[in-house]
Amino acid sequence: MARMLSPLAVSLGDPAGIGPEVIAKCWDNRSAFGLTAFVAIGDPRSIAAVWDGPIELVEDPRQADGAFDYGLPVIQLNPPEADVPGHPSVAGAHTSLDSLEIAVGLARSGSAAAVVTGPVAKEQLYAIGFQHPGQTEFVAERCGIAPENVVMMLAGPTLRTVPVTTHLPLAEVPSQLTSALIEARGRAALRGLQRNFGIPEPRLAVSGLNPHSGERGQLGREEIDIIEPAIAALAAEGWRVTGPHPADTMFHDRARAHYDAALCMYHDQALIPIKALHFEDAVNVTLGLPIVRTAPDHGTAFDIAGQDRADPRPMAAAIRMAAESASLRTQS
Amino acid sequence: MARMLSPLAVSLGDPAGIGPEVIAKCWDNRSAFGLTAFVAIGDPRSIAAVWDGPIELVEDPRQADGAFDYGLPVIQLNPPEADVPGHPSVAGAHTSLDSLEIAVGLARSGSAAAVVTGPVAKEQLYAIGFQHPGQTEFVAERCGIAPENVVMMLAGPTLRTVPVTTHLPLAEVPSQLTSALIEARGRAALRGLQRNFGIPEPRLAVSGLNPHSGERGQLGREEIDIIEPAIAALAAEGWRVTGPHPADTMFHDRARAHYDAALCMYHDQALIPIKALHFEDAVNVTLGLPIVRTAPDHGTAFDIAGQDRADPRPMAAAIRMAAESASLRTQS
Repeated sequence: MARMLSPLAVSLGDPAGIGPEVIAKCWDNRSAFGLTAFVAIGDPRSIAAVWDGPIELVEDPRQADGAFDYGLPVIQLNPPEADVPGHPSVAGAHTSLDSLEIAVGLARSGSAAAVVTGPVAKEQLYAIGFQHPGQTEFVAERCGIAPENVVMMLAGPTLRTVPVTTHLPLAEVPSQLTSALIEARGRAALRGLQRNFGIPEPRLAVSGLNPHSGERGQLGREEIDIIEPAIAALAAEGWRVTGPHPADTMFHDRARAHYDAALCMYHDQALIPIKALHFEDAVNVTLGLPIVRTAPDHGTAFDIAGQDRADPRPMAAAIRMAAESASLRTQS
Repeated sequence: MARMLSPLAVSLGDPAGIGPEVIAKCWDNRSAFGLTAFVAIGDPRSIAAVWDGPIELVEDPRQADGAFDYGLPVIQLNPPEADVPGHPSVAGAHTSLDSLEIAVGLARSGSAAAVVTGPVAKEQLYAIGFQHPGQTEFVAERCGIAPENVVMMLAGPTLRTVPVTTHLPLAEVPSQLTSALIEARGRAALRGLQRNFGIPEPRLAVSGLNPHSGERGQLGREEIDIIEPAIAALAAEGWRVTGPHPADTMFHDRARAHYDAALCMYHDQALIPIKALHFEDAVNVTLGLPIVRTAPDHGTAFDIAGQDRADPRPMAAAIRMAAESASLRTQS
């Protein structure tokens, strides 16, 4: 029998973005979305600016359990000025960073069962001296994990993908691919499938880089020289790994039934299919951390903030998946 | 009121592949699939080897209209030996090429309303001296069109994509992309949407090459240097063209509602989404020809030929789309 889970810590993200709105809407629809207790961390004024539901100020996630039935539990940050929806500011960047820091600390200490991060504006964060490419790397550092050992997975109801390379110009992808990198990402993905998704013997399908997976070297040699050796190395460790598969025939219904995650060679190869199939409910999961961390796969959307137009389903999917993964880890 | 359409000419493709089986199954299910009269071109023995329905030998597509209710109309090729399903041969390659040649000739002369081509084995064709990269280029040459002026479109019920570059190693894509090529492909796609799909003012969405469409040059400059000028040139001609769009957010339901076709920079960018969404009913359409030509987007599948396992839906989709396009062209 699973132990009672601590509440989840949810950082509001940038207070001028859609984070506060979608998190409040998740509380509104907590039963319909199947959400267990969570506590938001941020400036409650940024929630009140876009939502007129009840807010329950708490000081500790443990209080959130009792409060969750009555209102949206919030651990309060008190920046000097309230932010305005749709108008990002330097102060708001500080607030979003504080919120993230506290959420991670609560999960690290065990007070929160997991971290779900609201969307931040990277440009604003860079302006205040943030040194990490994104929240993922920040969370990794706070957990004492080298950034190369954490892996981003996009997980939807019928497909999970992991990109080997991420934010690189396409022209640089072939030169950045190495067998060692593919192996490391593959191993992290496989362990993550075990730990976060409870799959004891996970199956990983590895894509090719080139059209038709290179047609035996006719359309590029990376499959032969780089990808196949990585697959062989993972298989030699006992993992269930197949490929390289032609990327265009990996993602239809019947193909997806043969694996638990697809390891893709570059950003769009992983992101095109997951967003084509699961735009509303794909979750960004960070694997390789001692804590569970998820995030909705969308940005701050400043252009629609404060207009009651933001779709809470991606945030709900992120919260739900964090709870499921935290519960699985608690049981194991 | 539309004129009565001539029957379509359907080449059987390689006699040892699944072409004969899926074409025969299309006749079996002609009402369920909504198919108008077509005539198969090839060796009737390769059909009889995998199907026990009635075959109606005809000499001209015009006879197929009357025969279609009674059996599968076939224009007979008489190779010395019958081919065996699953066992490709040099003789079979000759038969498949003859079948293609006759089908194209019938459409060129107006005896057939359009050409639908069954799957061929390129290796076998190369072995008998076939000089074209594929059937598309062969059809183009027989129609007197330069290969660079024909365009492959993958068309499914909710998405159409056109790759600017096709069978290239991924590493060569950036250097092969030029504004002129994007413009030419875009123009052919737009004209094809008018002629084959009856869309008077087609909308074309152009993808970026890099993740997030390059993030204003931070993740690659091809969007700025190559793609944007091509979009501007097409727009200056009066076409409705948008982009460059980040490829990962172009293919979900709501995004697809904003365009009639997506112009993609490379093979997998175009093929991943169409096959993820429409594996069973995506049709390969050749645009830029004086005739209508479609094909199912699958190969010979020698490994399952003759086992009654081939899915006829892609071929049915190709036949149906050819009839619709031919009918639209007849009306215009």
